Amino acid sequence: MSADLASCRTKIDAIDKELLRLMNERQRITLDVVRAKRETGLPVLDQGREEALLSKLAQINPGPLSQEGIRRIWLAIMAESRIYQALSAAPMEEHR
Amino acid sequence: MSADLASCRTKIDAIDKELLRLMNERQRITLDVVRAKRETGLPVLDQGREEALLSKLAQINPGPLSQEGIRRIWLAIMAESRIYQALSAAPMEEHR
Repeated sequence: MSADLASCRTKIDAIDKELLRLMNERQRITLDVVRAKRETGLPVLDQGREEALLSKLAQINPGPLSQEGIRRIWLAIMAESRIYQALSAAPMEEHR
Repeated sequence: MSADLASCRTKIDAIDKELLRLMNERQRITLDVVRAKRETGLPVLDQGREEALLSKLAQINPGPLSQEGIRRIWLAIMAESRIYQALSAAPMEEHR
C-alpha cells in the first residue's frame, strides 16, 4: 500500500470513530426527545420536524456531499432513531 | 414546546452540524484514495476494505446504536462515496 493510501485510510478511520461517537450520542438524545414528548402529550413521530431538519442541513451543506446524498444518509440515521424509540417504548411504559 | 424538548433539539442540531462537517471531509478524502489507488494501479472498489471497516466499527461501537444500524448507516455513507468517485472519474482522467 502506498504511503498516500495508508495516510488517507488513517484519516478516514479517525473520522469514522468520531462519526460513531456522535451518532451514538444522537441516538441517546432521541430517547430524551420521546420522554419530553410524552410528558407534554406530543406525538412521537414528527415528519414536519424531520423535513425541516433535512432542509436546514441542505442549506448549510458546504459540499462535496450532494444534497441528495445528505438526504439519503440522514434518512438512514433517522430510521435508526425510530427503531430505537420503538424498541425502547415497552420498558418505558412499564416504568410509569 | 417544552424546555426539555427544545434543549434536545438544540443538542441534535449541533451534533448534525458536526456530522455534516465530518462527512464532507470524509467525502473529500475518498477522492484522494482514488488518486492514490490509480497511481499504484490498485482497483478503486475494495469490498474487503469496506467489510473490514464495518467489522472494526462494530467492534468499537459503544451503543446504543445497534450493529445492524451502524451497518445500514455506513452502507449509505459508503454508497455516497462511490457515487462521488464515479462522478469525479471523468474530469480526473482528462487532467492526466
